[in-house]
Amino acid sequence: MPEENTEVKEVKEVKEVKKRMPRKEENSVFVGRRPTMNYVMATMMILNKGVDCTVKARGRAISHAVDVCEILRNRFLKGTEYKGITLSTEQLEGENGQTNNVSSIEIVLAPPK
Amino acid sequence: MPEENTEVKEVKEVKEVKKRMPRKEENSVFVGRRPTMNYVMATMMILNKGVDCTVKARGRAISHAVDVCEILRNRFLKGTEYKGITLSTEQLEGENGQTNNVSSIEIVLAPPK
Repeated sequence: MPEENTEVKEVKEVKEVKKRMPRKEENSVFVGRRPTMNYVMATMMILNKGVDCTVKARGRAISHAVDVCEILRNRFLKGTEYKGITLSTEQLEGENGQTNNVSSIEIVLAPPK
Repeated sequence: MPEENTEVKEVKEVKEVKKRMPRKEENSVFVGRRPTMNYVMATMMILNKGVDCTVKARGRAISHAVDVCEILRNRFLKGTEYKGITLSTEQLEGENGQTNNVSSIEIVLAPPK
């Protein structure tokens, strides 16, 4: 039954995409490969509501996330403070089923008082 | 006086190299482009003395420094704790005299108890 097979495959693919996609949480920005300024603006919009913002990144994007926070603090929203920085390791499933360890960072920013 | 000129140039070059070289501080590891394991081992040797170790990095090496700390904590010296993480911006002088802002990280690790 080739039709059934493809169906199963599709379901599996959706699952994998979900796993790899960062959960979209409120008041958090997930830094990836887009231009730095996009993330700076997204973070600033959240902080301007007067609430904390969590900037997250994995792997090589970690340096990028630090850039986003530093540019924001030095140029756009002076007085923004680091409330907490957490480093951890996440297990990602690769395309061939093997798991890869990847470092991640979560930076909690508090808006200026 | 061409000779004098070269002398002045040389002195300037030495100064620039000094500026770009990280200060070698005790009990700290500056992460750059060498293999990850080199830095993991260097950090482990310091922590094994029973003292805190500061892992530093700039720019793209920030992700690398996080990898070093996470590999150390998960595989080599379980129980190592993050004592403090500092993000900042450093001004580096480029080759043509202009200054570049570059993000930096300092991760203080405490040995397992």
